[in-house]
Amino acid sequence: MLKYQHIAAEIEKYIQEHALQQGDKLPVLDELMVQFGVSKSTIIKSLELLEERGVIFQVRGSGIFVRRHGRKGYISLLKNQGFTRDLDHFPITSQVLELSVGKPTREAAANLNISTEQDVYYVKRVRYIYEQTLCVEESYYNKAIVTYLNNEIVSDSIFDYIREGLGLKIGFSDSYLHVGKLEEEEAGHLGLNKGDPKLEVETIFHLANGQPFDFSRITYNYIQSQFFIQANGHGM
Amino acid sequence: MLKYQHIAAEIEKYIQEHALQQGDKLPVLDELMVQFGVSKSTIIKSLELLEERGVIFQVRGSGIFVRRHGRKGYISLLKNQGFTRDLDHFPITSQVLELSVGKPTREAAANLNISTEQDVYYVKRVRYIYEQTLCVEESYYNKAIVTYLNNEIVSDSIFDYIREGLGLKIGFSDSYLHVGKLEEEEAGHLGLNKGDPKLEVETIFHLANGQPFDFSRITYNYIQSQFFIQANGHGM
Repeated sequence: MLKYQHIAAEIEKYIQEHALQQGDKLPVLDELMVQFGVSKSTIIKSLELLEERGVIFQVRGSGIFVRRHGRKGYISLLKNQGFTRDLDHFPITSQVLELSVGKPTREAAANLNISTEQDVYYVKRVRYIYEQTLCVEESYYNKAIVTYLNNEIVSDSIFDYIREGLGLKIGFSDSYLHVGKLEEEEAGHLGLNKGDPKLEVETIFHLANGQPFDFSRITYNYIQSQFFIQANGHGM
Repeated sequence: MLKYQHIAAEIEKYIQEHALQQGDKLPVLDELMVQFGVSKSTIIKSLELLEERGVIFQVRGSGIFVRRHGRKGYISLLKNQGFTRDLDHFPITSQVLELSVGKPTREAAANLNISTEQDVYYVKRVRYIYEQTLCVEESYYNKAIVTYLNNEIVSDSIFDYIREGLGLKIGFSDSYLHVGKLEEEEAGHLGLNKGDPKLEVETIFHLANGQPFDFSRITYNYIQSQFFIQANGHGM
């Protein structure tokens, strides 16, 4: 982690610990420099990062302000490590339905940018929040990259293992969302009825070097899940 | 628009015009400096912005690469001007169901950070893509900020008018997504059946100075709409 990223994390922690709310003003630049003991250019980079991440907004000539959605229990669609972090205060558990090595479907191979002859780990699990079903997840991991998985790992956080156990640097993800109706099998896993609404999210996760390593499809229980997205002005 | 933002837009245009694909390599830093006639620090800032926006990814010691989702017709959930730009090649039209001045609901007032005694413009419209219903939209605009709207404006792009007609600087947005079942009235507008799935997106749009000016609720036709999100590694 680079220095400005570390300072950004410190500022975010400061905001949380002081329970600052949307619109609350942060100390001015000079004070932040002193408070965190870093140069002006580092603080500026940290603030730019926090602005991109939707933690603060800066108003020229006016100051630095906290940006903070006020709704609890929402899953961020921008943090691509899954929802464990957003739902920090909620107990998330997993039931592994399948863990196997085999050949990918044509669709998975295309999304992982490999041939259908290469091996993948296939993981299917149901995830629970407060003992309610949150989602059903199917994932294909390129075995040439994610070289090892076992039942213990996939019962817990696979991404923590990929980062810490395998030492891989996770980069970015592309997600595709569709709303539809539950098939009978999905409905069974989620404890809902066939034909009930579903949100399906397909994601391709890439390493920092751009290689796709995981193609996953998550089907959410529409009653248990709600999502938020913070956007900034760049797209406008 | 600052210089590095302008150059970022130029680089994005270059990627589009050359139809570059996911993983394609961009010229090296020195070449980009010459090509766009700017300093190294400007190019670096432009590239950082493009990385945050999910247009490129940089691999240290290796180069700058294009990041480009390959699916057409998906609506970005990160560009908060609405979907007009994502669906550039698709004809979007609007049917205005209501345009009126009045008092906000308690919920709209809370989200706009005003009292229920202050005036708002209320706009309800159905939006179409290829003559299929894309969504029903209800919006509350704080009249103290968005001082004027008429039928012609709301039949077209309200945000273009806010930026260009009123000269306001749009900043950032917070969106909340829920999946549920269509009520009878919504289903009627969308040409679907009561109980069919729906994606509902509530968004609070803020000016660059942090003031909320628009609270909207969009209910999407689940058959016509699909969405994408690009995330980078910062949340991980």
